[in-house]
Amino acid sequence: MKQESTTALFPEGNKLSADWFTGEAFLFPLITQDKNNEFSAGSVTFKIGARTNWHTHPKGQVLIVTEGTGFYQEKGKQAQIIKRGDVVNISENVVHWHGASATTAMTHIAITNFLQDVQVTWLQRVTDEEFNHVNNNLK
Amino acid sequence: MKQESTTALFPEGNKLSADWFTGEAFLFPLITQDKNNEFSAGSVTFKIGARTNWHTHPKGQVLIVTEGTGFYQEKGKQAQIIKRGDVVNISENVVHWHGASATTAMTHIAITNFLQDVQVTWLQRVTDEEFNHVNNNLK
Repeated sequence: MKQESTTALFPEGNKLSADWFTGEAFLFPLITQDKNNEFSAGSVTFKIGARTNWHTHPKGQVLIVTEGTGFYQEKGKQAQIIKRGDVVNISENVVHWHGASATTAMTHIAITNFLQDVQVTWLQRVTDEEFNHVNNNLK
Repeated sequence: MKQESTTALFPEGNKLSADWFTGEAFLFPLITQDKNNEFSAGSVTFKIGARTNWHTHPKGQVLIVTEGTGFYQEKGKQAQIIKRGDVVNISENVVHWHGASATTAMTHIAITNFLQDVQVTWLQRVTDEEFNHVNNNLK
């Protein structure tokens, strides 16, 4: 493919809460819910080693990876490598996490649907043991 | 900002119909409507000089510009320059067009809401006269 822009698509934005994210994760909001858009959208940047807690979405979420390489894992399944240009359509009420890898950062746009006023239910942390297991399985 | 990837985020995809687009415009689909996502999303690439017809969306559309520079214009208003990293939240039933400029290509993600089964109503072509007027006003 031909040469394209060489700077990040969006600014990093603001650091996300350690209550729900491990490591350095940032959100740059793109669009808020309104009368037409029954979702919000934002650019989420995960520095090396950063990831969400395990969580669910009551009406699903779409991830569009815009930079780097990381993981998407549903509970009880093998983690998937996700990289720039990949799209993940996350079903409702599926326990999962996403984030960077132990050696690469990852940025995705997240389009998160609302079910009434709820977008996400946060669960337990993705432990270092769980994260290392996923990373070590790649080597 | 630091150096990032140097290739296009998505492939160009398939050429869009000359019935609704002037010039070389392409769609790479990212997500289709389903039980959770009351929208479709795709990456639309406008080569230099390419643009949509005038059109409306019954439940609005969100544009996220991922590459280049182009225009967004609502009927009766001055055209806006839109460029990589910009987000446009288009209201329902507003007559508008978007596309490249006469000298620059532009690619955006389009998230297009459905009202029942309808996403768009296509109207007349953006004439060369209209397009040139917008471009000449910048000089």
